[in-house]
Amino acid sequence: MTTAVCPGSFDPITLGHLDIVRRARRMFDVVVVGVARNASKTALLTPAERVEVAREALAADPETADVRVAEVPGLLVDFCREVGAVAVVKGLRGGADFDSELPMALMNRHLTGLETVFVPGDQRYAHVASSLAKDIARHGGPIDDLVPPGAAAAVRAALAR
Amino acid sequence: MTTAVCPGSFDPITLGHLDIVRRARRMFDVVVVGVARNASKTALLTPAERVEVAREALAADPETADVRVAEVPGLLVDFCREVGAVAVVKGLRGGADFDSELPMALMNRHLTGLETVFVPGDQRYAHVASSLAKDIARHGGPIDDLVPPGAAAAVRAALAR
Amino acid sequence: MTTAVCPGSFDPITLGHLDIVRRARRMFDVVVVGVARNASKTALLTPAERVEVAREALAADPETADVRVAEVPGLLVDFCREVGAVAVVKGLRGGADFDSELPMALMNRHLTGLETVFVPGDQRYAHVASSLAKDIARHGGPIDDLVPPGAAAAVRAALAR
Amino acid sequence: MTTAVCPGSFDPITLGHLDIVRRARRMFDVVVVGVARNASKTALLTPAERVEVAREALAADPETADVRVAEVPGLLVDFCREVGAVAVVKGLRGGADFDSELPMALMNRHLTGLETVFVPGDQRYAHVASSLAKDIARHGGPIDDLVPPGAAAAVRAALAR
Amino acid sequence: MTTAVCPGSFDPITLGHLDIVRRARRMFDVVVVGVARNASKTALLTPAERVEVAREALAADPETADVRVAEVPGLLVDFCREVGAVAVVKGLRGGADFDSELPMALMNRHLTGLETVFVPGDQRYAHVASSLAKDIARHGGPIDDLVPPGAAAAVRAALAR
Amino acid sequence: MTTAVCPGSFDPITLGHLDIVRRARRMFDVVVVGVARNASKTALLTPAERVEVAREALAADPETADVRVAEVPGLLVDFCREVGAVAVVKGLRGGADFDSELPMALMNRHLTGLETVFVPGDQRYAHVASSLAKDIARHGGPIDDLVPPGAAAAVRAALAR
Repeated sequence: MTTAVCPGSFDPITLGHLDIVRRARRMFDVVVVGVARNASKTALLTPAERVEVAREALAADPETADVRVAEVPGLLVDFCREVGAVAVVKGLRGGADFDSELPMALMNRHLTGLETVFVPGDQRYAHVASSLAKDIARHGGPIDDLVPPGAAAAVRAALAR
Repeated sequence: MTTAVCPGSFDPITLGHLDIVRRARRMFDVVVVGVARNASKTALLTPAERVEVAREALAADPETADVRVAEVPGLLVDFCREVGAVAVVKGLRGGADFDSELPMALMNRHLTGLETVFVPGDQRYAHVASSLAKDIARHGGPIDDLVPPGAAAAVRAALAR
Repeated sequence: MTTAVCPGSFDPITLGHLDIVRRARRMFDVVVVGVARNASKTALLTPAERVEVAREALAADPETADVRVAEVPGLLVDFCREVGAVAVVKGLRGGADFDSELPMALMNRHLTGLETVFVPGDQRYAHVASSLAKDIARHGGPIDDLVPPGAAAAVRAALAR
Repeated sequence: MTTAVCPGSFDPITLGHLDIVRRARRMFDVVVVGVARNASKTALLTPAERVEVAREALAADPETADVRVAEVPGLLVDFCREVGAVAVVKGLRGGADFDSELPMALMNRHLTGLETVFVPGDQRYAHVASSLAKDIARHGGPIDDLVPPGAAAAVRAALAR
Repeated sequence: MTTAVCPGSFDPITLGHLDIVRRARRMFDVVVVGVARNASKTALLTPAERVEVAREALAADPETADVRVAEVPGLLVDFCREVGAVAVVKGLRGGADFDSELPMALMNRHLTGLETVFVPGDQRYAHVASSLAKDIARHGGPIDDLVPPGAAAAVRAALAR
Repeated sequence: MTTAVCPGSFDPITLGHLDIVRRARRMFDVVVVGVARNASKTALLTPAERVEVAREALAADPETADVRVAEVPGLLVDFCREVGAVAVVKGLRGGADFDSELPMALMNRHLTGLETVFVPGDQRYAHVASSLAKDIARHGGPIDDLVPPGAAAAVRAALAR
């Protein structure tokens, strides 16, 4: 029984993220979504909100209903060891993405032998990114076809704070 | 129980390939190495030789002793369906590699839903490639630290034909 | 009134090519598809077949019905001068694609001031390429959702030659 | 009659930007330069200064004298709809640039069908970037061969504030 | 007698940096390490600490014992002129790295004719980066196989401030 | 006294190659141009012609008059050892170029410790490549601003054979 972790800041989780988790779930017996607490101050949602929104969206899809969501309090490798994961699964858009992810992947392998596998995202979501969704919401644009319903509501609420 | 395929032309299999198969084997319950018959005329070894060399090298390592090797007679997606694989595992060096592999990965997904996961190779083998090993052997250079013993012998024999 | 040329070997034209021509047509008043005679021997279809297949496919779509198709007998810049084109339009997948196209684009600008504009292809066709379509057809796979009907027929006929 | 928008933060406009606008103007009947208000706090010049500097520089060149400059108050797609633009024109240096611009281009296409075309910049300006010009000016270096005269003056004035 | 400069923020110097300096020293008669004062506020160590840590680490290796370390107070090209350097030496990981370094390299060439040469780093340090080392230290992880002893101590001291 | 080698197939040498050799010569005391015999059959000029054309062009420029030109009969690392070179110098266009050169550079380092340094080419020659020059000459176009005079003559003579 192999376990994989899908890490990210998920601020908020998008339809692109959900697609990657679904693909991870088809390849691994257990999948855990790890929400980085995110040292940088630029997150719109709190870690708790991000976990809650991700949990709700994953629960709504039978394919990912058994995916657990948890905060990553420290290093990703420690989190993976705790949940027994042999691999991290990351979506990938293009080559420049890979080049920027590679040092982190090699570092995690160096630290504990944790593997990182890269999965091409569904091309239907190639335009979807949390940052772009927040930009659009900030200007009053629609984001309901970019993020799950709970995420759209959470973003709107956070922007109104 | 999840099955993955490691495809390639393996002309010949290198220490870099063996590293990727080993990593695949840690993540998937069953791993099959698929040797492409290779439409292009540039292969040095015959498909049968490439299968044989790969088989011997994988058998010599307890971690990969149960990995099966077979020729891929047609489309990779058909081969994967036959062996029941949910994913293809490919080693990746850099971003340009990813960009050139992406259309094929998306095509395979389009055809049968077959996933492709990309795994960064061990940096100790970043210089290893079948083509470079053959170039070196052609000029009488040593390749014993690039390919397994059987592969070095097969390459030398083929160059002497 | 601005004219643009969409160049390529179109061996055969794919749904991805048709998408780029359609986008070019929305931006330029006149669009001409230029079929490279292709020095390399690897083309499956003859230049005349490639022109014919492209012409038929473009004629079938009201958006591209007025797009002309012609063979490019020599340098692309000479062809563009003859048809009065100010720009070449090329579809682009990823960054490595751009890097490989850039020297040719700069050369054409150097030779006659001809511009090249790069347009991201529709992500629905990210897996579509003439070479992959021919590979699939060679192994008896279906290509009707990759190329227009006439192209699929021409490829099958050529493979049976 | 086709209209295109050249968007950017233009903090300040450089000789590289002017080159791209000139190329856009040769391909499109109407070109509008859209100055992003720039949520990030790192801009040196105010939006009004950036518009003013760009306007003056474009007016000084007969080829771009009819190019309009305006602030983009919200989403780029809304701005483009208002000015009736069918396409956005962006200069491109290398493949990594393309990879980072692609999601935004696909998002704009998703939102309103707005196209983005990428044009290789003139290689004579390959070293020119607003950020590098400001760095040099900050250390008292000359920037008169990187940006138009008004921009150099505005940067120096802003640094003295 | 040719002189080269290895520039960086060195916050702190890593085993990867030391490897590049060592390679530079084999190719150039004189090598100077230039520590950028770093306009951005995100540096953990002060410029003086970064110089001190680099100096100590380089002195401990006979191959780099004669490498001088100095702060770069202004533009890199001015620093290089002062120390008489004909070239800057930078380590490079992947293609996206090169694309992001290129404009700066071309700018330096434009300003004073200063060349930049890019050297692939030792693959054994492909996972090593100052930023990753600091992240790990922040979470209490070991960094003694990523940075020289003095750097590890300085980072721990700075994090405890 | 440090020696560097500029390797290539030089079929024929271009103004871009000459620029890289000139830059190498400013950084290294001795520079040798190594002409690969080129296993592939696609070379237009014979190795002897390529050496002759390169030699003549380098001799005509005082900056490179002392650069030696020789055929590389076997592995590049052996050639470099014979001429006492510590480094190979290669021009680089973009990131995808680097990614494709990297395995060979690491292999050469692995074999004998030979370093490879990458130098950005002069942007004025960004459009110049031997292959493009030959294509243009094949169609009767002018190549005198792409290659040195002797190269243009040799290409025309070879095409007329």
